[in-house]
Amino acid sequence: MPKAGDKSSSRDIKVSKGAVDEAFKTLSNWGRWGKDDQIGTLNHITPAEIVAAAKLIKRGKTFALGIPLGQSGPQRGLFGKRWNPIHTMLATGTDALAGRQERLLYADDAINMPIQSATHWDSLGHIFYHDKMYNGHHASAVDSNGLSKLGIEHAKDKLVGRGVLLDIARWKGVDTLEDGEGISNDDLDACAAAEKVEIRKGDFVLVRTGQMEACLKRGEWGGYAGGDAPGLKFESCYWLHEKQVGGVCSDTWGVEVRPNETKDVNQPWHWVVIPAMGLYMGEMFDLAELAEDCAADKVYEFFFCGAPLNIPGATGSPINPQAIK
Amino acid sequence: MPKAGDKSSSRDIKVSKGAVDEAFKTLSNWGRWGKDDQIGTLNHITPAEIVAAAKLIKRGKTFALGIPLGQSGPQRGLFGKRWNPIHTMLATGTDALAGRQERLLYADDAINMPIQSATHWDSLGHIFYHDKMYNGHHASAVDSNGLSKLGIEHAKDKLVGRGVLLDIARWKGVDTLEDGEGISNDDLDACAAAEKVEIRKGDFVLVRTGQMEACLKRGEWGGYAGGDAPGLKFESCYWLHEKQVGGVCSDTWGVEVRPNETKDVNQPWHWVVIPAMGLYMGEMFDLAELAEDCAADKVYEFFFCGAPLNIPGATGSPINPQAIK
Amino acid sequence: MPKAGDKSSSRDIKVSKGAVDEAFKTLSNWGRWGKDDQIGTLNHITPAEIVAAAKLIKRGKTFALGIPLGQSGPQRGLFGKRWNPIHTMLATGTDALAGRQERLLYADDAINMPIQSATHWDSLGHIFYHDKMYNGHHASAVDSNGLSKLGIEHAKDKLVGRGVLLDIARWKGVDTLEDGEGISNDDLDACAAAEKVEIRKGDFVLVRTGQMEACLKRGEWGGYAGGDAPGLKFESCYWLHEKQVGGVCSDTWGVEVRPNETKDVNQPWHWVVIPAMGLYMGEMFDLAELAEDCAADKVYEFFFCGAPLNIPGATGSPINPQAIK
Amino acid sequence: MPKAGDKSSSRDIKVSKGAVDEAFKTLSNWGRWGKDDQIGTLNHITPAEIVAAAKLIKRGKTFALGIPLGQSGPQRGLFGKRWNPIHTMLATGTDALAGRQERLLYADDAINMPIQSATHWDSLGHIFYHDKMYNGHHASAVDSNGLSKLGIEHAKDKLVGRGVLLDIARWKGVDTLEDGEGISNDDLDACAAAEKVEIRKGDFVLVRTGQMEACLKRGEWGGYAGGDAPGLKFESCYWLHEKQVGGVCSDTWGVEVRPNETKDVNQPWHWVVIPAMGLYMGEMFDLAELAEDCAADKVYEFFFCGAPLNIPGATGSPINPQAIK
Repeated sequence: MPKAGDKSSSRDIKVSKGAVDEAFKTLSNWGRWGKDDQIGTLNHITPAEIVAAAKLIKRGKTFALGIPLGQSGPQRGLFGKRWNPIHTMLATGTDALAGRQERLLYADDAINMPIQSATHWDSLGHIFYHDKMYNGHHASAVDSNGLSKLGIEHAKDKLVGRGVLLDIARWKGVDTLEDGEGISNDDLDACAAAEKVEIRKGDFVLVRTGQMEACLKRGEWGGYAGGDAPGLKFESCYWLHEKQVGGVCSDTWGVEVRPNETKDVNQPWHWVVIPAMGLYMGEMFDLAELAEDCAADKVYEFFFCGAPLNIPGATGSPINPQAIK
Repeated sequence: MPKAGDKSSSRDIKVSKGAVDEAFKTLSNWGRWGKDDQIGTLNHITPAEIVAAAKLIKRGKTFALGIPLGQSGPQRGLFGKRWNPIHTMLATGTDALAGRQERLLYADDAINMPIQSATHWDSLGHIFYHDKMYNGHHASAVDSNGLSKLGIEHAKDKLVGRGVLLDIARWKGVDTLEDGEGISNDDLDACAAAEKVEIRKGDFVLVRTGQMEACLKRGEWGGYAGGDAPGLKFESCYWLHEKQVGGVCSDTWGVEVRPNETKDVNQPWHWVVIPAMGLYMGEMFDLAELAEDCAADKVYEFFFCGAPLNIPGATGSPINPQAIK
Repeated sequence: MPKAGDKSSSRDIKVSKGAVDEAFKTLSNWGRWGKDDQIGTLNHITPAEIVAAAKLIKRGKTFALGIPLGQSGPQRGLFGKRWNPIHTMLATGTDALAGRQERLLYADDAINMPIQSATHWDSLGHIFYHDKMYNGHHASAVDSNGLSKLGIEHAKDKLVGRGVLLDIARWKGVDTLEDGEGISNDDLDACAAAEKVEIRKGDFVLVRTGQMEACLKRGEWGGYAGGDAPGLKFESCYWLHEKQVGGVCSDTWGVEVRPNETKDVNQPWHWVVIPAMGLYMGEMFDLAELAEDCAADKVYEFFFCGAPLNIPGATGSPINPQAIK
Repeated sequence: MPKAGDKSSSRDIKVSKGAVDEAFKTLSNWGRWGKDDQIGTLNHITPAEIVAAAKLIKRGKTFALGIPLGQSGPQRGLFGKRWNPIHTMLATGTDALAGRQERLLYADDAINMPIQSATHWDSLGHIFYHDKMYNGHHASAVDSNGLSKLGIEHAKDKLVGRGVLLDIARWKGVDTLEDGEGISNDDLDACAAAEKVEIRKGDFVLVRTGQMEACLKRGEWGGYAGGDAPGLKFESCYWLHEKQVGGVCSDTWGVEVRPNETKDVNQPWHWVVIPAMGLYMGEMFDLAELAEDCAADKVYEFFFCGAPLNIPGATGSPINPQAIK
C-alpha cells in the first residue's frame, strides 16, 4: 500500500522532453539483467511468481481478453499504415457442395493483419529512444527484415503469471473515463486499495478505463485507434518501475493518456517505458466480462496467460490473453 | 488403465469408406451438448478440470509449443493453397535513423498467413462429412465470408485445461517414428502406462512422434506438410472418444498416419474426429523441449493453455500453446 | 448516327426482373463465337480494327487512365469485402543507408489488393445469371481456386483497339452528373453527334460522368465505391449490343446508374451485359486529363491499350489504360 | 550499324568495382533532363517517336509478354523476400450456387504479390549507388512508406513507343543461351544487323536469351529467379547509353549475365544503368510467341505498350506488355 513520500506516489511532473529524458535516466533497466537481455521487465517473473499465480485458479473460470480480428476492428488510418485484419477463405463448404473437392471436404483460410491492429503485445523493439532500443541495442537492428534484436520471440514462454485488474472506471463510478482523463499514481494506489488487491513484483497490471466498451456501445470506434483517450499519466512510469510489474495492459489503444501531457514528443510515456525500462505493454484488451466478474466476486487477481505467437523479429504479437480465476 | 476387452483397445479395423461411415455413426456427438453446440469435445472441460489442472503448476516452468512463423516454415505446396507466413515491416529503425520519423520513433509490421500454415488448432468447421459439419450444421454455412457456424471464436476461452504428453518416440526408444508408422490404441495405452500417467476426461493429449525434430535436424521439411508421416491409426478415434479427451495434438502436420490406411478417402480419421465427434485437434506442435523435461522429471502432465486468436469465422487459429509445470 | 426507330434508341423500359430476363434473351451472345468462347464482345475487335485504330496516333500524346493504387483509394466497405490497395516495402533505402545491405543496395516492395479495388476490367466470370455465366459456363467453375472459365487471362492480348470518349458531363454543360442521373441511349447518340464521332464495331466506349473528379475535388470519396452514382441507364445494354462495342468503361464505380432503376435485383444492367452479352467493362477510369484534351482538339477518338495483368482465374485485372492520340 | 572504333563496340572491360565507378561517371545522366527529372531514359521518347512507332502496326496482331501471375511463378527464395503471387477469392460461384448471395450473384478476388515477382518494370528508385539514386536523389527518400522520389507513377504514361526484338538465341542458332553466357555489344550489333533492324533513340530493346522457355520446357524454374543466367555483359551499359534507348527488357530475371563478371559487387550492370543512366528495365518478359512471329515475317520492330500500374511510390510495376505488329 502506498505511503506518503513514496517515490512513486503522485508528483507534479511538468511533462516535456526534459522530463522524458530525466525519467529515461532514472528508470533505465539497461544492463540490469545482463547486456544481452531481450525481455526486460519479464525478468521480474520467476518460477515462484508463476507457482503462486497458479493458486489463484479457484473457480476454473476463464476470460478471453482478445477483441475479434476482422473488418470490425478499430483501425481508421489515424496512425501509421495499419489496417483491420483481413480474413479470406482458401477453400469453402460451398466449394465442397458444388463438387469442387475430392476425397477430403474441407475449408481453409488466411489472415493478413498488422501485428498491432487489435489486442496485442508491444515487443521491446517497437519504440526507439533516439538511435537506441531497450538495453542499448541499436535501432539499425530493426530493418525491413524485422527485428534482429528484441523481437517478440524472446518472450514466447514468458508472458504468464499473476494478473491484477485495476478497474479505474468502476472505482471512479463511471462507465468510462473521458478522453484526455489521466490516471495518476495516486489513482492506481487508491483503486488497488479499494479493490483490496496488492500489486506485486512480476504482475501483469490490467487497467480498465471503459473506453473500449463505450465505443462498442456507441457502435463506432471513432478515434479509438490513434485519437484521444483516457489513460495512464506520464508519472505512472515511476509507479510501474517501483512496483516491478511484469507488464501493463489496458483497454485502450495506447495505454497512456491522449492528448499527451506535452506536445514536445508523441507518446512521452512510451519513450520511457519501452526503451528505458523494457516494460511489456498490452493494448486493446477487452476487459468488460472480466471486470463484471471481479466486481461480483470482489477478487481482482487471477492467473494470466498472454502467450504471444512465435513470430521471429516481430514488434509484438496479436493475442487473445486468458485470465483464469 | 486399459483392460483387455475395452472397446477402445486395438482392434483389427480394415479402414475403408465403410469403416469411416461406421465410426461416424458410432462416435457421433451430434446433439450430445445441445443442437446449437459449437465446441464439441471442449464440453468435456468443466471448471473442475481447470482447477485440478492448475494444481499441476508446481515448478513454475513454462514451455512454448509454437513453431516460428515465417519463411522458414514447412509449407511446400503439397496441400491446398497454403503458404508460409509472410512477415513484412511497416516502419523500421532504419527509417528512424534516416530521419524519416518524427516525434515518435517506432517500428511496425504485419503478418499474412494461412490459419493452418504452422502450429494451429483446427476449428470444428474445418472438415465436412458430405454436406454436413459437426452437430449437423450444413456445409453452406462456410462460404467466402468465413464460417458462420463452428468458427474458432466459439473456443476463445475454452482451450485451457490439463495436458498430457504421450512421448511415443521416446517410449519406443527411437528419435522419430517412421513415415507411415501408425500408433495404435494399445501403443497409446502402453505409453501412458510406462509414463505412469492417466488420461482423464477433458485432457489435451499431446502425441510426440519425433518427426518435426527429425526434419529440423535434417535441415529441411521435405514432405512434412502434406506428405507421409507417422501418426495415429484410424482406430484411435474410438480411443479418444472413450477417453473423452478435450483435444488431441501432435508434432506432425495432420496427427493421423500417412499414407492413410485406405485409399478410399483422404485423411479418414479427420472425416470422423472433426465432423462426428467435434474433437479439437492441434497440429505441428513443437514438443522437443517439453519432452526432454518430462523425460527428466518423469512428470508427463501439466497445465495447458492453448488460447486461439479470436478470429470470427476462422477454420482454426495459429497458436503458441503453453505447457506449464 | 441514330435514326428514329432504331432499336437501340431510347425506349420506355420499366426495369424489373422481367425486363432483365427479356434483355438477357434478346441480347445473348451465347454460342455466337463458338461454344468455347471466353472473350465475348472482344471478338468484335479484329486485326482490321487495330490497324485502323493505330492511325489515330497522330500527336504522340499518351494519357494514363488508372487511378493511384494505395490507401487513398475509394473503397469504404460499402460493397463486399474489398479494401484499398496495401503497398508495403520489403527493402528500403534507409536499410541501405544503415549498412543493412551488402553488395547490392536496393529497394523492394509488394502490393496486396482486391482485383476490383481501383481502375480495372471485369472479366466475364465476374457476374452470374442464376447458375450460369457467359456462354453457358456453369457457376461452379468459379470456386476458391479461381475462375477455371472466363478468367481475365483469356483477354491478355485482346484489350487493344479504338477508343472513343463520350464526355456526357461536358456535353450536358456540367462538372458532374448527379447521383442517380441516368444516361439514356438518346444521350449517348446525341453526345456522339455533338462530338462528331462515330461509334464503330469493336470500340472501347469511355463514358465520362464527372463523378470521380467531383469526389477528388471534394477531397473525399464518400459513397463512390458502392453507393449512388450517375451512369448508364438499363436500356443502354441494347445500344451497346447494336453498336457491337468491344468494351464500355466509365469514371464511376459500376458504369450503371445507382440507385438502380429497379429494386428487384442489384445492378440489373450487370445481370445482362456480362453474362448475356459477354461485354468487357472497365470501371473507375480517370478521364479528366483525356477529356480536357479532347475538348481542346475536338478529337474524341484515339488508340486504346488497356492490357490487363495476366492473372489466370481472375475476375478482372487492375489496369492503367492508355489512350494515345 | 556498328563500326570499328565505335565507343560502344565490344571492348575488354575487366569488370570490377573500379569499372563500375568509371562507367557510373562516364554514363551519368544526372541533371541531363533537369534536376527534378524522375524518368531518366524515358525522356528519349518524344511524341515523334510514338507517332513513328504507331506506323509499325500493320497486321493488327498483338502479343502479350507477361507471364502468368500465380503460384506457378519463378520465385524460389533465392533473392530477398519475394514470393510468388497469391490469388485468393473473396466471393465465388459456388457461394452463389449455395444460395449465399442475394440480388447480385458475383465473384470477387484479390492478389498479393511482390512488385518484382513476375514480368515487371524496375522504377528508377529500385537501385542505389551508395547513398544516392538516379539524378542525385538521396536514398533516404525510400523508406517504409515507399519511394517519395523516382516511383513508377512518374512513368504512368511514358512506357509506350517503338519496340525491337533482338533474338540473340535464334541468331546464335540455339534454343537457349547457357547460364553465364554473356551477350556482348558486338553480339547486339551483329544480331540487329542480321535482323535488318536498326536501334533508334527511345527504343525499347527486348533481348531474348531463351532461358525462360528452357525453364518452362523443363517444367521447373530452378535458379531462374536469382540464380545463374545468360544475359547482357557489363559493357552493354555503354552500348545502351550510346543508342539512347528508352528501355531494355529481357526474358531473364535480371537482364545482366550471372554469375556476374566480378565478385566485387552484386549485379554490377544494375549499379550503373539504373542510378547513373536512369534506364528503365523490364524483366521476365515472355518473348516466345513474339519471337516466333518475328522469325516468320522477318519484322523485328513493333509498337510497344508496357504501361505500368499507377502505384505511387513503387519500385516498379507488374506488367503485361503488349507488342503490336
